[in-house]
Amino acid sequence: MAKEIKYKGRFIEVIDDDTWEYVSRVNGQYAVSICALTNNNEIILVEQFRVPIQSNVIENPAGLVGDVDENESALESAKRELLEETGYESDNWKELYITCPSAGITNEKSVKYLATNCRKVGKGGGVEGENITMHLVPLKSLQSWVERKKKIGVMVDAGIFSALYFYEKQRGLEVN
Amino acid sequence: MAKEIKYKGRFIEVIDDDTWEYVSRVNGQYAVSICALTNNNEIILVEQFRVPIQSNVIENPAGLVGDVDENESALESAKRELLEETGYESDNWKELYITCPSAGITNEKSVKYLATNCRKVGKGGGVEGENITMHLVPLKSLQSWVERKKKIGVMVDAGIFSALYFYEKQRGLEVN
Repeated sequence: MAKEIKYKGRFIEVIDDDTWEYVSRVNGQYAVSICALTNNNEIILVEQFRVPIQSNVIENPAGLVGDVDENESALESAKRELLEETGYESDNWKELYITCPSAGITNEKSVKYLATNCRKVGKGGGVEGENITMHLVPLKSLQSWVERKKKIGVMVDAGIFSALYFYEKQRGLEVN
Repeated sequence: MAKEIKYKGRFIEVIDDDTWEYVSRVNGQYAVSICALTNNNEIILVEQFRVPIQSNVIENPAGLVGDVDENESALESAKRELLEETGYESDNWKELYITCPSAGITNEKSVKYLATNCRKVGKGGGVEGENITMHLVPLKSLQSWVERKKKIGVMVDAGIFSALYFYEKQRGLEVN
């Protein structure tokens, strides 16, 4: 059986490929996500209500490439999203990896960037229709902070930890 | 506008909730995923062709709770999946966290377990219809191993790193 679009909505479509059903973004967009750190060893996280999860979720700042301007590169999107959502910017960007966060149910791919030496230059909070709270969390107390958030019913996207694993390995390599 | 099911397939359905479209598993199943380690500081990973990604993907061993027996607990599912996919078992299990891997497009939730002291007791490779290759990778060379896999076109689910961040923090705490 060939690949068939079983449903096409405004934002997502369902594809049936032989025996497998999965979801795709209608316009084929991929995501960018930023592990953003300050010079004070703090990580910049965002919290927002996520309709699919029906609760607030803590995540890295993130967005879709080409959401505003279709000619925008992945890195340009990442810089724009970081500024819009958190009010921070950085001159130190590095692509860490491309991941497929849920390969069984969606073809979504996401590029993870590391932005260091981030500095506050704006208000953040997201664009129109977004309601985003920014958190500045010292890395050394991240796990206890996450535990406190969980206790009040906030979900955490563990993707925030995968980038930190890379960051700490890299820092370890620089030191050794 | 109320929540509305816009499409219902064999395995997944599309929900429109006010202004947001997202995908859900038809039977509301959630996932389990295992960061499985041996006494020799090796991580047990699986590689399989993922239809949505259209390439091989490296992941933690994983599966759906209640896929075989609807009364199965999350921990029982995790133990079964580890054994089926890799041939390993463990007596040391710990729940690390519940995550929402892609909160913008799916309501999927996944429980991540840490299984230490894993020992080989079976063949692995998955059940009928699955074609899973098991990899035993020393933690100290994980990043270079991943880079080599990427160079030959294999995708990596960065979820394998988030659990390791927890594991290494925990080990650090035990040592200090």
